[in-house]
Amino acid sequence: MADTGEVEWVENQIGRLVPRSINGEELTPYCGPFNAVPRNDRKHGPRLGYIADQTSEVIATLGAAIEKVGLKDGMTISFHHHFRNGDMVMNMVLHEIQKMGIRNLTLAPTSTFQCQEDMIIKCIKDGTIAHIEGGSARGEFGRLVSSGKYLDKPMKIRSHGGRVRAVEAGDIKIDVAFVGAPSADELGNLNAINGPSACGTINFAYVDVNFADHVIAITDNLVEYPNFPMSISQEKVDYVVVVDKIGDPSKIASGELRVTNSPTRLKIAKDTVTISDLLGYVKDGMNFQAGAGGISLAFNEYLHKLIKKKGITAGWAQGGTTKFLVDMLKDGTVKKLITGQAFDMVAIENMKNNPNHVDLPIGAYANIHGKGCTVNKLDVVVLGATEVDLDFNANTATMSTGIIAEPVGGHSDTAAGASLTIVTVPLFRGRFPVVVKRCTTVVTPGETVDVVVTERGIAINPRRMDLLEKLKHAKVPKEMRICTIEELNRMATDITGSKVEPNWGNKIVALIEYRDGTIIDVVRDVVPKYYDDAVYVDKDRE
Amino acid sequence: MADTGEVEWVENQIGRLVPRSINGEELTPYCGPFNAVPRNDRKHGPRLGYIADQTSEVIATLGAAIEKVGLKDGMTISFHHHFRNGDMVMNMVLHEIQKMGIRNLTLAPTSTFQCQEDMIIKCIKDGTIAHIEGGSARGEFGRLVSSGKYLDKPMKIRSHGGRVRAVEAGDIKIDVAFVGAPSADELGNLNAINGPSACGTINFAYVDVNFADHVIAITDNLVEYPNFPMSISQEKVDYVVVVDKIGDPSKIASGELRVTNSPTRLKIAKDTVTISDLLGYVKDGMNFQAGAGGISLAFNEYLHKLIKKKGITAGWAQGGTTKFLVDMLKDGTVKKLITGQAFDMVAIENMKNNPNHVDLPIGAYANIHGKGCTVNKLDVVVLGATEVDLDFNANTATMSTGIIAEPVGGHSDTAAGASLTIVTVPLFRGRFPVVVKRCTTVVTPGETVDVVVTERGIAINPRRMDLLEKLKHAKVPKEMRICTIEELNRMATDITGSKVEPNWGNKIVALIEYRDGTIIDVVRDVVPKYYDDAVYVDKDRE
Repeated sequence: MADTGEVEWVENQIGRLVPRSINGEELTPYCGPFNAVPRNDRKHGPRLGYIADQTSEVIATLGAAIEKVGLKDGMTISFHHHFRNGDMVMNMVLHEIQKMGIRNLTLAPTSTFQCQEDMIIKCIKDGTIAHIEGGSARGEFGRLVSSGKYLDKPMKIRSHGGRVRAVEAGDIKIDVAFVGAPSADELGNLNAINGPSACGTINFAYVDVNFADHVIAITDNLVEYPNFPMSISQEKVDYVVVVDKIGDPSKIASGELRVTNSPTRLKIAKDTVTISDLLGYVKDGMNFQAGAGGISLAFNEYLHKLIKKKGITAGWAQGGTTKFLVDMLKDGTVKKLITGQAFDMVAIENMKNNPNHVDLPIGAYANIHGKGCTVNKLDVVVLGATEVDLDFNANTATMSTGIIAEPVGGHSDTAAGASLTIVTVPLFRGRFPVVVKRCTTVVTPGETVDVVVTERGIAINPRRMDLLEKLKHAKVPKEMRICTIEELNRMATDITGSKVEPNWGNKIVALIEYRDGTIIDVVRDVVPKYYDDAVYVDKDRE
Repeated sequence: MADTGEVEWVENQIGRLVPRSINGEELTPYCGPFNAVPRNDRKHGPRLGYIADQTSEVIATLGAAIEKVGLKDGMTISFHHHFRNGDMVMNMVLHEIQKMGIRNLTLAPTSTFQCQEDMIIKCIKDGTIAHIEGGSARGEFGRLVSSGKYLDKPMKIRSHGGRVRAVEAGDIKIDVAFVGAPSADELGNLNAINGPSACGTINFAYVDVNFADHVIAITDNLVEYPNFPMSISQEKVDYVVVVDKIGDPSKIASGELRVTNSPTRLKIAKDTVTISDLLGYVKDGMNFQAGAGGISLAFNEYLHKLIKKKGITAGWAQGGTTKFLVDMLKDGTVKKLITGQAFDMVAIENMKNNPNHVDLPIGAYANIHGKGCTVNKLDVVVLGATEVDLDFNANTATMSTGIIAEPVGGHSDTAAGASLTIVTVPLFRGRFPVVVKRCTTVVTPGETVDVVVTERGIAINPRRMDLLEKLKHAKVPKEMRICTIEELNRMATDITGSKVEPNWGNKIVALIEYRDGTIIDVVRDVVPKYYDDAVYVDKDRE
């Protein structure tokens, strides 16, 4: 039991109290974005999997496949989230496991979505699931974790790159990885570009299939052997199960992908492009990542226009990919696209046949303990946050109520890697200030955040003297205000009043693990009266 | 010292005496092609490699890169053989290592070629290299190993699939993998389809980069980041070294690729197609592999014609790829090509842009202890041999003189996997019978060989009652003779006289490791008087 009364606390480098150990596991406090070296000497060595019959590994039922790989009480199972809110795989598997009476599992998905909440909650309440190695928790699932009532051990919240690090290092030992596969052959060569549930890529599962003891592929599209391209190779897959449907195509591609039409957010997006340009980052060969939220898409559009106007060409763009990026690739304003997730049909289609549009293993995207990743080559990344504080720390996991409600994604990974990290936020949301004195929870440390853009002003991190120096000589448009983060906080609280601290309990319900495996913050349980506030979800960030 | 006087012998399942242990390492005797399960529980976990500066990993000199990864006396280094006889990487690296005075290394290449012989021999003689984990040894290098004079521990000779198994299981622990890369970016995203030394694929290195502690890429073609396609990802590569030239393009593509014009061999090739057809294997959707030797290419041509004539379509073909296969892909007589190695420029070019022509990890090709491999889906494989014996055992490592001279390649892998394994051999070569009573060395066990085709007759393995039954009802052309293996042996020895046993010494110079890690045979040192015979190399087999 992770009750705060039992733990010894230590202040980490950003002044957050974190436990020295929990449930017997020694923890390393966060010590700066590039200072922690791997704790383990070696990568995890998964079970040597010999499948006797290698001519067909198609198993008639999911239950039979689960039995064959020997899933037992207390084991760890994993899933990828490429079908997003259209995913049918996790529910199907959990249902089967529940029926089989297997208990006390650790659920280690790459992320979760609303469509899975009911099932996950049921499985937690009936003891099928005893522990979560996230990923993320949103909605009702996030509230359940925040209630501190059902899970003994704190959930570990990790970034995309951090999860890969944890799997490779054996911090998460996956017993069985369940991989939803839009197309598969009978030996388990898998790809995501063909079939009714095509989702472009299943690259989040690459690390799982490499380090899991067992891999079960679940497909609704069994094709003639050999399935090309072999995005995941047969040599990693134990068994293939064919079902009617693994995803709802209408929900796999996100329905919400539109540029914001809020004047506030449009201003933020436009100013983000302008400040990037003033700081010298909008230049020939620039590499960038923005997300698929409303502000990010607007940023993409403004950037696209500016690049055209300047007559330059961007090098590459990466991250969650949408038609806005594909448009740039097609008109030559960006040379290459690297996709972590495909967010719409245009992106999915384009991945089928455009050699300048590829996916990559998430480790190659963001694993700090790998030997090189794309985030380190980013010139500009544009990120959201639920809160930013006076130290430029960003929160992307909890709401100001303290309730776990948002995914970390590649936030702390890209922030650490990019030359220019911009967090775009409205000054306030409803009655909550967003630029606060001290974040409710820190996910991304302030020393990796360079600029905060709001609708009322832009603050440059004073650690970046070089940027401040550049701005001195730049022609800042008069409708754009450069100020301090303290001024932004003052403006926000002038409107909303000061941030109210969450009604914390005494139990640690989640550990925020930085991408290098150190602990940057903890989340405690939240006493019920605040629950209603968690209904609030910021549509402008994913 | 592996002197045979010191070891305890045991007879394995095919009646060969093999040691129970050697130099303290316990060995498992061969026990049938599908009976040995992995000896180790888990895959090898390589060192967790954290590269602090992940924005550029280009190192000015090879020596500096070797120093940075900490190569030391007694470590194991590996190389891929995709540049074949045009390779410049191994010599360059060995030269540097020699200069640095590092000693007692284990050399674990995927294969070696003549262009490396001088350097390897020098390094063995001066103590830079103390042990070989093959791969193969040919020519002067093979003779040196066979002499038993310079290497204390026996070389391990493995098939392509067997090497992957050994690396994954940690039987070979690679400290530093040196990967020649036809194109690379500054973080080590590598591919083989672009650049002056393009060789189509570097898939033999895939297992090395996954399981080596350190990886140094050596390229003559540093391209703008990110290098697409990322055949090997930056997350695996420690450092990149740029040199003038990594390969001689005229020798990367094999110069010898022509259909045999020997009437004997043409008859063998034609009869091989005919017998495959009579046995029912030339059918719609058939999958096949032949090599790039003269007989194999002729087999390809005859098969191509027959497929056209029948109006059917082959499913896929794999293995070393040449223009003969690409022609089939282009005219639609085969649907897909899977390349292990690209043997000519046509194959290399075709891999650039034909989505129906891919490479695959060698583990997915042939690793018996993986979870599925293509060899198991083969309908027909056509292989050569230096010798075949009355038990249908095949030798592909030593000449009849006992001298190690030929590579194993995918021989035992495909033989075990394919539904119909045909060994094509001339009855005799020079004064040596090829169909012999007992092979000098067994590489591929007879229970995995179904048919032996010679110019004077075809023998069906009596274990394959089904094939014999089929032939009873088939119309065998009168110029084609079905007989027993004993008859073939008799015909051969009528011409050449009986096989003379090699002039073996007492030292074990090589262990023939079957693809599952068991020991199928040993090779002893050969006393010098027989050396001259090793000059003989069969041009019809690779």
